[in-house]
Amino acid sequence: MTLPHPTADQIILPNVLAVLGDPTRLAIVRYLASKEGVPLNCSRFLDLCSKTNLSYHLAKLREAGVTRTEAVGTSRLITLRRDDLDRRFPGLLDSVIAAAGDASLPAVGGHEIEVRA
Amino acid sequence: MTLPHPTADQIILPNVLAVLGDPTRLAIVRYLASKEGVPLNCSRFLDLCSKTNLSYHLAKLREAGVTRTEAVGTSRLITLRRDDLDRRFPGLLDSVIAAAGDASLPAVGGHEIEVRA
Repeated sequence: MTLPHPTADQIILPNVLAVLGDPTRLAIVRYLASKEGVPLNCSRFLDLCSKTNLSYHLAKLREAGVTRTEAVGTSRLITLRRDDLDRRFPGLLDSVIAAAGDASLPAVGGHEIEVRA
Repeated sequence: MTLPHPTADQIILPNVLAVLGDPTRLAIVRYLASKEGVPLNCSRFLDLCSKTNLSYHLAKLREAGVTRTEAVGTSRLITLRRDDLDRRFPGLLDSVIAAAGDASLPAVGGHEIEVRA
């Protein structure tokens, strides 16, 4: 199953900033950035909030073009769209991630829950 | 009259990003950045939206610590808190302003309306 994503050219600055303006979503982005290139199972983020809220936050990130969600069976694999964001808004993601490194954000515990594939 | 402003240390990343995630507020910040150091009368931004909406947007920017509002009589003079933002989040404001330079944002017409002082 393919979920809808904006193309790189459809990524819009106010949308990206608005979506990043939330502690839970910033924590997700900071964690994805630390594991760059590795698609992460969305269950990795269940420490941050309830399943319903996580779905909501991941949809917001995907719709703004910040992350890519690949559906594999019942799993959702999440990656940061670093190349697209760096091309559209040079330096923005790096400065946000650096600032987020010092911010008091919720921690991603890293415990992986079994999700049926 | 002094309006409430967060201290530099009270400026919080998610709040700043959320507040910048709006085309009108981004346009205000971009314009303030282009006139750096010069306090601008808030009437300068009346092209962007109604007076009520402008008050709302300027309050959001002030409360997040992005701008400083000085009340002089019935006028409001607005400045960008560049030093505070650069110290708290190095590179962030520059990358946002650079990205905003290419974005399709509403233009600040630059017509000054007489406001009683």
